[in-house]
Amino acid sequence: MAYFAGIDLGGTFIKCGIVDETGTVLVKDKIPTGSTRPYAEIAEDMGKLVLDLIVRAGLDRAQIKAVGIGSPGTIDSQEGVIVYNNNLHWRNVPLGPAVQAIVGLPVFVTNDANAAALGENFAGAAKAYDASILVTLGTGVGGGIVIDRALFEGNRSAGAEIGHTVIRMGGEKCTCGRQGCFEAYASATALIRQTKRAMEKNRDSLLWEVSPTLEAVDGKTAFAAASRGDRIAQKVVERYIDYLAEGLANMANIFRPQAIVLGGGVCAEGEALLAPLRKRMDRLLYGGTDYAPVALIAARLGNDAGLVGAARYAWQKTEPNA
Amino acid sequence: MAYFAGIDLGGTFIKCGIVDETGTVLVKDKIPTGSTRPYAEIAEDMGKLVLDLIVRAGLDRAQIKAVGIGSPGTIDSQEGVIVYNNNLHWRNVPLGPAVQAIVGLPVFVTNDANAAALGENFAGAAKAYDASILVTLGTGVGGGIVIDRALFEGNRSAGAEIGHTVIRMGGEKCTCGRQGCFEAYASATALIRQTKRAMEKNRDSLLWEVSPTLEAVDGKTAFAAASRGDRIAQKVVERYIDYLAEGLANMANIFRPQAIVLGGGVCAEGEALLAPLRKRMDRLLYGGTDYAPVALIAARLGNDAGLVGAARYAWQKTEPNA
Repeated sequence: MAYFAGIDLGGTFIKCGIVDETGTVLVKDKIPTGSTRPYAEIAEDMGKLVLDLIVRAGLDRAQIKAVGIGSPGTIDSQEGVIVYNNNLHWRNVPLGPAVQAIVGLPVFVTNDANAAALGENFAGAAKAYDASILVTLGTGVGGGIVIDRALFEGNRSAGAEIGHTVIRMGGEKCTCGRQGCFEAYASATALIRQTKRAMEKNRDSLLWEVSPTLEAVDGKTAFAAASRGDRIAQKVVERYIDYLAEGLANMANIFRPQAIVLGGGVCAEGEALLAPLRKRMDRLLYGGTDYAPVALIAARLGNDAGLVGAARYAWQKTEPNA
Repeated sequence: MAYFAGIDLGGTFIKCGIVDETGTVLVKDKIPTGSTRPYAEIAEDMGKLVLDLIVRAGLDRAQIKAVGIGSPGTIDSQEGVIVYNNNLHWRNVPLGPAVQAIVGLPVFVTNDANAAALGENFAGAAKAYDASILVTLGTGVGGGIVIDRALFEGNRSAGAEIGHTVIRMGGEKCTCGRQGCFEAYASATALIRQTKRAMEKNRDSLLWEVSPTLEAVDGKTAFAAASRGDRIAQKVVERYIDYLAEGLANMANIFRPQAIVLGGGVCAEGEALLAPLRKRMDRLLYGGTDYAPVALIAARLGNDAGLVGAARYAWQKTEPNA
């Protein structure tokens, strides 16, 4: 049995785990990122955490084949360089080589959303499928594309920007500069904005009971009021599901994956979200659902998806047919 | 040198050619499809044409490694079956096996737009690129996706439906049943509709000189009047380019190919279309164009793209690393 280390680099925490060939996490831990520090210090902490966890797993460094890192931002995975990372204010940071110098093992870097998609495919919700797409509904809409069990990253790993495809030309302003992106309609941030707007227009809605102030609105507010029968909240939820269905059907018509995995906070709603969404998305699939159906399922690995996927990524980079 | 036969099955003509490993077409010919006939007759004609062309190329059947077919419709390329073809009224037609029985050579079937995309990548406009997307602006918006020099077809070959991704939710009705598809805004059919609408609203536009009747409007009308300085026509062209730019940028942000190849009748406009389109698309690319630019170029193989790509497809199916 070969082992791999997987690291999920976040703005708040560095999560790391030792993962085996079945996708099982033997040990894991997290430490604060300290994101304002120079990158060399962060890389050193990442390397030390890996070495520490190897020991805690009762393993020898020689038993670890490679280290994978999922990092936010645009990644040059060929070179292990973070080309651009907004949150950490990094530009052209050679993170892979820096960590490699400390751990003395091959290090491979990919985008964090890509890593999570690979993790769900390897050991999570999409384990049964060769081709799956992860769509994460959080602050933004992230995701990754798995084809034939491997990540599709696009030229220079700059593709798979699922959230930044326009579903409504001329619509809501997106953080990327475009108008009408999937992210601007289907992220948790977008749902919160949609909920607040409905509240402003409907002072007598039950939404105000669930969330007495606009500031307190979160991604659960509309679902909670809707389940209590509030018509305004139900409309917000229905409309949100419409947006989601259009964006997901776009991905389905292009990639025709066997499964789309939904992740992120909004997915805590479970079947209250998934059941109606499945129905609407299926109606939008080109050629219908008889010939090549697309399963719509909830992510399963939670916070571990990134580190499990990063470990899997490292495995596939060292053994292309793994 | 190995040789391959490539067939482009159209509603009007069956085009066939013998293609070598460099993508050169040694001989080619076309015969009427006779699309109302039983499929077995069409398959027989296809097979006979292949055998005839082999002789006319001065080759022996043993020198032909395989036959590729690009067919409209949804194709089960694993089985060589046309699952569904609207124009030929075919359902579950085993075209590949039927042609194979006649030519006595391995036969592989893919979608015609996919074949054209592979042809342009193999021997046409995208020859220099490992990853390219063909987008064809005709009656509809078709296209195909090439990754690492091979077609990406999606699960059961049901993907790559580029035209059927919504860019304007709730917008123009599409033939597929959705509203607001890329095809409903960027096809030649859509451009004609947009031109006619502008003419109906502007009786004094130069558009009426270029096309004295609404019935005579075609994909060139707006471009012709625009080049003569008509402001209404220029607005039609600008808006059409906006639609195109949004749809192409969506594909670029997902696939980040090295090149997007534009094909179809509308492309006869050349740089009058491509130069402004390039500018607009580039502004919509995620992360800008410094790190991973996407070239926008015109198709080069014209009517041969399908048969050249079908031949290449057959080659790759017999030799996966070709």
